[in-house]
Amino acid sequence: MSAEVGAGALPTKGFAFELRAEDGHARRATFTTPRAVVETPTFMPVGTAATVKGLTPDEVEATGARMILANTYHLWLRPGAELIARRGGVTRFMGWEHALLTDSGGFQVFSLAGLRKVDDDGVTFRSHLDGAEKRLTPEESMRVQRLLGSTVAMVLDVCPPGGAARPEVEEAMRRTTAWAKRCLETEPAEGQARFGIVQGATYLDLRRAHLAELAPMAFDGLALGGFSVGEPVETMYELLDAMAHELPRQKPRYLMGVGTPYDLLKAIGAGVDLFDCVLPTRNARNGQALTWDGRVNLRQARHKEDDGPISEACGCPVCARFSRAYLRHLVKANELLGHRLVTQHNLSFYGELVAEARRQIEAGTYHSWAAEAAKRMREGDEVGRG
Amino acid sequence: MSAEVGAGALPTKGFAFELRAEDGHARRATFTTPRAVVETPTFMPVGTAATVKGLTPDEVEATGARMILANTYHLWLRPGAELIARRGGVTRFMGWEHALLTDSGGFQVFSLAGLRKVDDDGVTFRSHLDGAEKRLTPEESMRVQRLLGSTVAMVLDVCPPGGAARPEVEEAMRRTTAWAKRCLETEPAEGQARFGIVQGATYLDLRRAHLAELAPMAFDGLALGGFSVGEPVETMYELLDAMAHELPRQKPRYLMGVGTPYDLLKAIGAGVDLFDCVLPTRNARNGQALTWDGRVNLRQARHKEDDGPISEACGCPVCARFSRAYLRHLVKANELLGHRLVTQHNLSFYGELVAEARRQIEAGTYHSWAAEAAKRMREGDEVGRG
Repeated sequence: MSAEVGAGALPTKGFAFELRAEDGHARRATFTTPRAVVETPTFMPVGTAATVKGLTPDEVEATGARMILANTYHLWLRPGAELIARRGGVTRFMGWEHALLTDSGGFQVFSLAGLRKVDDDGVTFRSHLDGAEKRLTPEESMRVQRLLGSTVAMVLDVCPPGGAARPEVEEAMRRTTAWAKRCLETEPAEGQARFGIVQGATYLDLRRAHLAELAPMAFDGLALGGFSVGEPVETMYELLDAMAHELPRQKPRYLMGVGTPYDLLKAIGAGVDLFDCVLPTRNARNGQALTWDGRVNLRQARHKEDDGPISEACGCPVCARFSRAYLRHLVKANELLGHRLVTQHNLSFYGELVAEARRQIEAGTYHSWAAEAAKRMREGDEVGRG
Repeated sequence: MSAEVGAGALPTKGFAFELRAEDGHARRATFTTPRAVVETPTFMPVGTAATVKGLTPDEVEATGARMILANTYHLWLRPGAELIARRGGVTRFMGWEHALLTDSGGFQVFSLAGLRKVDDDGVTFRSHLDGAEKRLTPEESMRVQRLLGSTVAMVLDVCPPGGAARPEVEEAMRRTTAWAKRCLETEPAEGQARFGIVQGATYLDLRRAHLAELAPMAFDGLALGGFSVGEPVETMYELLDAMAHELPRQKPRYLMGVGTPYDLLKAIGAGVDLFDCVLPTRNARNGQALTWDGRVNLRQARHKEDDGPISEACGCPVCARFSRAYLRHLVKANELLGHRLVTQHNLSFYGELVAEARRQIEAGTYHSWAAEAAKRMREGDEVGRG
C-alpha cells in the first residue's frame, strides 16, 4: 500500500478526501472511493443482510445515498462470505452500484451472540442462528470483509457496554489498539480502504488517549465507536463537541451507529462526516416517519382521516403519492407496503437532511440553521404511541 | 338501472362486454368498465387490505393487470368502509387508477370469523380482529361495497365447504338465489356493476339448476363460486369443462379464488374470462416463483450459487436485475425485499400467461398451446421444499 502524492490523497490507492468548506468544526468534503464519489457529511443507510429493508438499490440511490453499510457478522453467518465472494462481492450480489462499508462483525458479536469469550487474540461466540461456535479475530474479520469486497472495511474493536467502569474501558482500548495494528498488517481487497475505531466510552481523557494511539496509523479514516450504547445523549454531545474535531482533519470521520436527526445535526456541527443508523429503517416498520417538523407517529389516531402526505415539504415518491390515512392503515394492518413506503420516506428525509447540511456549511450558516432545524423538529415531535 | 342498447352492452350503464374471438369454448373479449378497459381472459391480483402485498400500484399496473380485487370483509373491519368512502373509495385511497372488484365479504365470514350463524336473512359472526359481533346481510354487503366504491360488486352468497352433502348444498343455493334477488334490489354506487355467483359444489345437476336460476337476472356478469375449496382438482376441471361455457355468452364469466397456472390454462379453455387467487402473492412469500418452466422453489439448495434470473425468458424487472442466489438469500433470511420481488415476478408471470392466452385464442391455437404449456410447466416443477 503506497501513499499517493497530492492534496487529499489517503493511504490506500484510489481513495481521497478533499475538504471543500469548513464552518466552525463542521466540514463539507468529498470522499472519493473507487466505487463512488461520496459528498460529506452523509448518511449511510443500513443494509444489514445485503438489503436495505424492503427497498431496491435504485430506490436507495434515489434517496441520495452513495455509500451503504452491510453487517459482516450477518453475511458471514448467512449466506456466507465465500458464497458472496464467488458472486463478485456484496455490491454485485445485491445490485448496488456505489460504495459499501462493512463493519468488523464485532458489534454484533457483542450484542447478538450468546456465550462469548474475549481474549487478547479475539473473541469466541455462538451463532445466534444455529448455536455453532465461531471465532472472530482481527485477521478473520479482515479476511471476511475482503471476501465481502467492501469499499471501506472497519477494524475489529472491543466495544464496552454503556456505563462501563474505567478498567474495563481501558482493557477494551488496549485490545482495540493491538487489533488495529494486526488488521493493518493484513492484505485488503483491491480498492478497499480501512478505518480505525476510537473507543474510550464516556471518559474524555481516555477518548483522547486512544485517539493519540490510532491517529498516526495508516488508516484511511477514523471512526468513533462506543457511542449510543446506553449513555445519556447529552453526554455523547459533550464528548463530540470536545473531541470529534481532534480526529485527523484530512481523513473522513465516522460516528458509528448514530443516530436521530438531532444527533446528526449535533455531530455534523462537531466535525463528523459519516453516519449510519438503523433508526430510519427500523422505526419505519413501527410507523414512525421523520420530517423537518419532527417525528410523525402514523399509529396515532389523528392521522386516520388525514389525506395529506407525511410531509408537504418532502419531495420523495411516497409523499407525492400516498396519504397519511393510507399509510396509517398499512402500518396498523402490518402490511409490507407500509414498511416499505415509510422506510423509503425516512431514508429520503435523511438524504435531504445531509444535503441541506452540506449546503449550509458551504454558505457558512450551518450552526444557526442546525439550531433552528432542531428546534422546529422538537416542537413538532409526536412522542406518544397513539 | 337501464339496459343500454348496442352490441355488448351490459345491464349497468358504462359497462360492456365484446367478444373478439372464440377458440372452442375459450374466449377473447374486452370488458369495458368506467374505470378501465379490461382485456380478457385476465387475472386480478389480490389486494386484500387495499394493497397488493408489498407492491405499489405502479408496479401492479406494470404486470399488465387492469382490475384488482379487494376484500370487503377485511376493509369493512379495518379501517372501515365509511372511512374509505370519505377518502373517495378504495381506488383513490390506495392510488390504483384502474378497475376494482370487491367480493361480498361472505367467503371470509365463512373461512375466518368465529362463531358464525347463518339464517335466511344473513349471517352473524365475530370479527377475527377483536371478537366484536357483526351482522352481514345481502343489503349490508352491498352497502359496504357501495362505500368501498368498487367497479364490480359481488352478491353475498353462501359457500358450502368442499365435500358438503347435497342437502347442505341445496340450502346454500336456495339462500344464494334469494340473496342475489335482494342484492339486485339495492342501489349500487355510481359506475358499479354487480356479478351473481353460481354455487352447487361438485354436483353438476345442482350447478346447472343454480345457473338456470341466476342466468335470467340483471347481473353484469356471473361467477362460479365454491371451487378450490377442498375438492379434487380433477373434479373442478370436469365441472368447468361440462358447464363453464353454459354461463351467459355475452357476459363476463369469473372463476372465484382460482388458481394455479394449470387451473388458469384449463379454465380459460373451458370458457372462463376472469380469475383471482392469492397463490402468486402468497406463495411468493414462501419463496415459490412461477415460470413457464414450472415452479421454482427458491428455498432449495440448488439455487444457492445460481447467478441466473428466476427465468431467462421473463421480461419482468426482477428477472432483469436479481439472481436466484440473491433472491434465495433474501427468502431464507425472511427479508421484506425477497417477499416483494418474488411477488412482483409472480404477478408479472400471471400477466404474461393471460396475455399469451389472449394471443393464442386470437390465433385459434389456444388448446394445443395450453396443453403444451401445461406439459412444459409440469416437467419443470420443483415440488420439494429444498
